Amino acid sequence: MKYCSNCGSPVGRRVPPGDSLPRYVCDACGSIHYQNPKLVVGAVPEWDGRLLLCRRAIEPRYGYWTLPAGFMENGETAAAAAVRETLEEAGAQIELAPAFSMISVPAVNQVHLFYRARLLDLEFKPGAESLEVALFEEAAVPWRDVAFRTVGLTLKHWFADRSRGGFGFHTEDVN
Amino acid sequence: MKYCSNCGSPVGRRVPPGDSLPRYVCDACGSIHYQNPKLVVGAVPEWDGRLLLCRRAIEPRYGYWTLPAGFMENGETAAAAAVRETLEEAGAQIELAPAFSMISVPAVNQVHLFYRARLLDLEFKPGAESLEVALFEEAAVPWRDVAFRTVGLTLKHWFADRSRGGFGFHTEDVN
Repeated sequence: MKYCSNCGSPVGRRVPPGDSLPRYVCDACGSIHYQNPKLVVGAVPEWDGRLLLCRRAIEPRYGYWTLPAGFMENGETAAAAAVRETLEEAGAQIELAPAFSMISVPAVNQVHLFYRARLLDLEFKPGAESLEVALFEEAAVPWRDVAFRTVGLTLKHWFADRSRGGFGFHTEDVN
Repeated sequence: MKYCSNCGSPVGRRVPPGDSLPRYVCDACGSIHYQNPKLVVGAVPEWDGRLLLCRRAIEPRYGYWTLPAGFMENGETAAAAAVRETLEEAGAQIELAPAFSMISVPAVNQVHLFYRARLLDLEFKPGAESLEVALFEEAAVPWRDVAFRTVGLTLKHWFADRSRGGFGFHTEDVN
């Protein structure tokens, strides 16, 4: 950021009074422009022991496989974001189950949150941001072509939890 | 937002190609300015069955009681944010326990996340944003003077879970 989004004047980066971190501050109108991590929210849709993955039609990681997920929007709940992204990217209708993993990625100022989910039918089809959508049993997951570490960790937790007979909530950090 | 933070030109609000929601778009430099929910992260610090609350020295909800919490910063993990906010607002050192509650507040574009925590000593003292800091057993919690619904819900879940002998992870929405 170099200009004030409220008045269009150039902004400087300094620690405001009473704060402890540098912010973009506008001397013209007094606005302080905070920048905070974004939530990426998605689902782990299951059908009969297989999980739904999407092959990305966009950068970053074009051509790699991911769980349906995307940036949470203003005005929606985290659960609604998971349902919406699954519909947008995989054309898939799901019933959400409890939250399953939450992984901080401080290097890119993101927190990735995944819910377990039950696929309601097999009418899925790739959305504009996906090349293809398919169901994978554990042995068939294209592990070397998984798009993001948070997705790989979430998939590993899911299969491990299923093996031991109970699903938990997993929090961790990457990088 | 009315001006482009990249180039200072006025921005308009419209749906960019390939998108489905209106965004602030700059025709001068092509920037699209997304606005997404923020994470508010905090802790539920316990000492011998009592919980640490802070009385707010800032708006909103000046004078009301809250758990230590605040906006997660770029470059940090959610867990680090909970520890930092507890130190800043309550002068308190904690050892984090598992994540405990995650509550979407779509009306203000926020997600509130609280971790359970163990207070490491009794050397707490109010930070700049707190009037006072104190430990409360369940019967002494100032329920009518709790600052935010997400804090009240988190406190209720905590005492209910303790009564039944096990702590879960609670997700819900308010509004």
